[in-house]
Amino acid sequence: MIKVGVIGCGYWGPNIIRNFSQMSRTEVSRVADLDQERLAHIRKLYPFVQTSTMSQEILSDPYIQVVAIATPINTHFELARQALEQGKHVFVEKPLASSSQQARELIQQARKQERKLMVGHTFLYTSAVRKIKEIIKSGELGDIYYINAQRLNLGLFQKDYNVIWDLAPHDISIVLHLLEQNPVSVQSFGACHINPAIEDVATLSLDFGNNLIAFLQMSWLDPDKVRKMTVVGSEKMLVYDDIQPAEKIRIYDKGVQGPKYYDSFAEFHYSYKYGDILIPKIDGGEPLQTELSHFIDCIEQDLTPLTDGENGLQVLTVMEQAQSCLQNRRAQNKEAE
Amino acid sequence: MIKVGVIGCGYWGPNIIRNFSQMSRTEVSRVADLDQERLAHIRKLYPFVQTSTMSQEILSDPYIQVVAIATPINTHFELARQALEQGKHVFVEKPLASSSQQARELIQQARKQERKLMVGHTFLYTSAVRKIKEIIKSGELGDIYYINAQRLNLGLFQKDYNVIWDLAPHDISIVLHLLEQNPVSVQSFGACHINPAIEDVATLSLDFGNNLIAFLQMSWLDPDKVRKMTVVGSEKMLVYDDIQPAEKIRIYDKGVQGPKYYDSFAEFHYSYKYGDILIPKIDGGEPLQTELSHFIDCIEQDLTPLTDGENGLQVLTVMEQAQSCLQNRRAQNKEAE
Amino acid sequence: MIKVGVIGCGYWGPNIIRNFSQMSRTEVSRVADLDQERLAHIRKLYPFVQTSTMSQEILSDPYIQVVAIATPINTHFELARQALEQGKHVFVEKPLASSSQQARELIQQARKQERKLMVGHTFLYTSAVRKIKEIIKSGELGDIYYINAQRLNLGLFQKDYNVIWDLAPHDISIVLHLLEQNPVSVQSFGACHINPAIEDVATLSLDFGNNLIAFLQMSWLDPDKVRKMTVVGSEKMLVYDDIQPAEKIRIYDKGVQGPKYYDSFAEFHYSYKYGDILIPKIDGGEPLQTELSHFIDCIEQDLTPLTDGENGLQVLTVMEQAQSCLQNRRAQNKEAE
Amino acid sequence: MIKVGVIGCGYWGPNIIRNFSQMSRTEVSRVADLDQERLAHIRKLYPFVQTSTMSQEILSDPYIQVVAIATPINTHFELARQALEQGKHVFVEKPLASSSQQARELIQQARKQERKLMVGHTFLYTSAVRKIKEIIKSGELGDIYYINAQRLNLGLFQKDYNVIWDLAPHDISIVLHLLEQNPVSVQSFGACHINPAIEDVATLSLDFGNNLIAFLQMSWLDPDKVRKMTVVGSEKMLVYDDIQPAEKIRIYDKGVQGPKYYDSFAEFHYSYKYGDILIPKIDGGEPLQTELSHFIDCIEQDLTPLTDGENGLQVLTVMEQAQSCLQNRRAQNKEAE
Repeated sequence: MIKVGVIGCGYWGPNIIRNFSQMSRTEVSRVADLDQERLAHIRKLYPFVQTSTMSQEILSDPYIQVVAIATPINTHFELARQALEQGKHVFVEKPLASSSQQARELIQQARKQERKLMVGHTFLYTSAVRKIKEIIKSGELGDIYYINAQRLNLGLFQKDYNVIWDLAPHDISIVLHLLEQNPVSVQSFGACHINPAIEDVATLSLDFGNNLIAFLQMSWLDPDKVRKMTVVGSEKMLVYDDIQPAEKIRIYDKGVQGPKYYDSFAEFHYSYKYGDILIPKIDGGEPLQTELSHFIDCIEQDLTPLTDGENGLQVLTVMEQAQSCLQNRRAQNKEAE
Repeated sequence: MIKVGVIGCGYWGPNIIRNFSQMSRTEVSRVADLDQERLAHIRKLYPFVQTSTMSQEILSDPYIQVVAIATPINTHFELARQALEQGKHVFVEKPLASSSQQARELIQQARKQERKLMVGHTFLYTSAVRKIKEIIKSGELGDIYYINAQRLNLGLFQKDYNVIWDLAPHDISIVLHLLEQNPVSVQSFGACHINPAIEDVATLSLDFGNNLIAFLQMSWLDPDKVRKMTVVGSEKMLVYDDIQPAEKIRIYDKGVQGPKYYDSFAEFHYSYKYGDILIPKIDGGEPLQTELSHFIDCIEQDLTPLTDGENGLQVLTVMEQAQSCLQNRRAQNKEAE
Repeated sequence: MIKVGVIGCGYWGPNIIRNFSQMSRTEVSRVADLDQERLAHIRKLYPFVQTSTMSQEILSDPYIQVVAIATPINTHFELARQALEQGKHVFVEKPLASSSQQARELIQQARKQERKLMVGHTFLYTSAVRKIKEIIKSGELGDIYYINAQRLNLGLFQKDYNVIWDLAPHDISIVLHLLEQNPVSVQSFGACHINPAIEDVATLSLDFGNNLIAFLQMSWLDPDKVRKMTVVGSEKMLVYDDIQPAEKIRIYDKGVQGPKYYDSFAEFHYSYKYGDILIPKIDGGEPLQTELSHFIDCIEQDLTPLTDGENGLQVLTVMEQAQSCLQNRRAQNKEAE
Repeated sequence: MIKVGVIGCGYWGPNIIRNFSQMSRTEVSRVADLDQERLAHIRKLYPFVQTSTMSQEILSDPYIQVVAIATPINTHFELARQALEQGKHVFVEKPLASSSQQARELIQQARKQERKLMVGHTFLYTSAVRKIKEIIKSGELGDIYYINAQRLNLGLFQKDYNVIWDLAPHDISIVLHLLEQNPVSVQSFGACHINPAIEDVATLSLDFGNNLIAFLQMSWLDPDKVRKMTVVGSEKMLVYDDIQPAEKIRIYDKGVQGPKYYDSFAEFHYSYKYGDILIPKIDGGEPLQTELSHFIDCIEQDLTPLTDGENGLQVLTVMEQAQSCLQNRRAQNKEAE
């Protein structure tokens, strides 16, 4: 039985605790949080778990092999670094750290200690994204032209970081996973309406070269709840609508083909293909369970996690570029005032 | 009875002919087009209309007071210029011309000749946009935070200009109309998948200063047909879905308010307001009829058209900035290869 | 060129005139209607058509081979009877007549005169219904369990007949066509809210024996416009939503299988099958054109129309049974007062 | 602290246990079920609850004041009767009993023992139905013309009773609650496709006199999950779509008015009113909590439950009439074979 310590039991931590508790291979032995009330709540649900306001008690417990970190972003790095130093395998909620530099240090540390480091890009473990990945890999969509994603809703403001740090890790991690490459350039655009230094609505434009692009939009201020991603390929197109309870993926047998040959006198001709739409059945299952189970597999069988430190670093690199864009913009606006 | 000449009877021209024919104050006396087949079709529908492949016959007909131009974009300027020179009132399909410089010349010409110049930003004459304008003016939405617009579909490729020149005039004209100001900066992003020099998918980021922004997205390659605009205000939010046959506008009584005061020790608090949704009844009516009727009113009563040359110039200015962004991007990509 | 006379050019007649005018094999030579204004309108659109308020002029014109009848229901029989008597081929808008007795007389007359008699059950000529028919015939749905249909909207009240006579012929004709059998019993239920003797909302329950049933619902008083039909089979299920502009048919790879064997001690077990959903591409095309073209084919090649007199009789038989149910109910209610 | 005993912890029982556990005024002291595994599950979740396979232990426990029954329908009567006899207040899952005769006996028993008897028509405690009730009571819809309800899905077959006993209590209880009257006649129609003696699809036609009707449809065999109710009034119309996560109620400002006066020469004229649509905000909250809290209020303050025995009897009376219709139909079909 692998003993797990969980640091942070606010919004997401309890889900990690529940899943590690339900797995036959793991047990949660300690939980730490600064908030005594949250700890009391956990003790009521899991009477055998030891709780503390000191994360140090988890890090120094020699029986704990795995540490899961679900704390505010700015503490990820320090906690993960210490846990790796103590020889623990470490699972960190997304994003992996506050900067790509921090991510690089964690990767090195994990390598040095020969421990697993994994980041919670949970969407990559959903049935829907796995199905989409499978469809793209099969070549069914043809060459990918672009990806367009929206993640909009009203609410869930954060006070320490903007809507990009809150929502973009999801779509960036999905896009990088599906395209299997990193963007050559990233642009970002946004505005701060509620808090003067925190963007509450933003877009990201990712350029992968060769006319392959991705456009991401996120908002804390939209009246509709939207979580939609469109993948346009040369052969077929796919829409992933995560709000739909059952029909999350639609595959459109549509496409446009350019003219077969060029002729200076000829008219331009494109052929449009309108065809069937398929809504494939998607198996349910909690993605967090799949994710944490994969993490334990990686530890037991010495595999590389799908969302390892490198993956966390790639996502952070994109976010840093976006963030820097927004900061330049804010600086210019200040000057203009 | 005001005599009208129509140049161009391809895709949109026949609608102009039909509307001018049905109005009691106007009659279509001449139609010109390069395509004999299209002219034959028009003669069958309107036996009394004189047709010609020479637009000159319209321009030089002294009985014609009004010329409507529905030809390819790159001919707009020259035809409009000549028609104004001949003392005609001129209606030009959107966009007004191929450049802001051309637009400025047409405006001057119209002023000199004391003739009306109007551009076919038809959406401003729809019941939906008029209702939205009225709602915003009433202050019901509070301060506008941002506008987010998507105009996506599969098809209707153009061979001479990109998706921005095809689709963006609609949303740019709506956004400028609703916000009653011009952007201080415009960025654009896009890619060419079918034809190497023509963007088939693109986004525009409009910055109006003071954190008021607008995002526009357009695509010729999307499997879904989407024509949606979200207007987020400090008090309420509005979604305009032009695909809906009846329920085009939804007003959400939702909003977010920032913290009332700042206190270094206090937690951040936002209050969310979730309320009713109202779908106001919108009267039907063909917007082109409203538009052309307004044009004749302006001629008869010497009024300034809502979508006059200045308005056409403003839209073109935004498009030029976007176009220049895309061209820089294409140039950089070429270098990178 | 087959000469056609059209009697009635109110709501539906003009569509018949337009389609016969556009077909290369037919021309509309005469149109009759009691309303002079409607006739003037037709003359403007079709200058070569002769118009009259006397249907007799059509019936006695020896050059006219085909008569199309689009008049109020209570005149169908008399006009069709006379036209057949004069040796015309006759197309009658749905329903064929006001009673099954009348329908039988028309069938006999047509047989005696060796002329074609066809009723305008237009939905059978839509691409959607033809696709559904093809799917059912292929056995893809397995055994049909039941059909459930709704045709609801606000408006289009008739003053002379109830909602069943107005809307049910559509769904009855589709159901009989799909199932290829006639019900052994028909029940109906409804109520009169606006006009005391005219049901404005009603249901029909059709029993085909062997547990095969169909429910139809229709209303003139529903806030939503609904035109939906669900066909449940033992293997798959199909939903036909006629309001959808493009995605009219969905095939669900779902089903329920009963227990394989009975065992007094065993628990009951059903296996549910949840699978993919397919939205097949459906070709467009105006169904009335397909319908009238089929009628001319039947005349030229001496074929039996898909919606011949017998088919019209079957639909009327179901409607009469439903009507009789409703009348009994009204009578009982009167007594109760 | 009121002590509660719960009999039955299969599908719905655990929800009752959870709610009584979370209320500050009640505690669950005993749970009974025939299945040892279910009891073990309950002990794990609620270590202080005593469990038994003998419901007698609950009934004879003098400290238990309230008994909640969530067992198969055919056991409701006997368990409720005994519990009342032992002086307990009794909450029974819907339907109250297997027949109206049983319901009458329970009502009498409760009266004799001066104990509260309540049936779990949970939908009457949802925010949506309470809002609809409030809207109808306010007169906003005008006179109610009809109610049309559908409750369709694939699955959840029962082996002992048909789809009416499973699904209709919900809609019957809502309809009787909204209309505040009982039908003067009930008809039913259905068919058995999976199990030869159990209807898996059925309709109910309720006639309340004066042209007020309700039509209910239910199915275990529909590919779509539908839970929709339309209430048509003379002034406005309302659609309640329980599948919608947030927008459950829509109020349509539509209506039809009959002719103002009759005149033998006059044409029939109806005025249609098309207006705004309002989607009122509905508060969340678990209806079962509201329901059980209301039950405890009734006990503590000696009030009559909204869904008391009489209410349970009224629903059962409708169901019995429907059931008898279906049985006659089945008998006739057998004869016909």
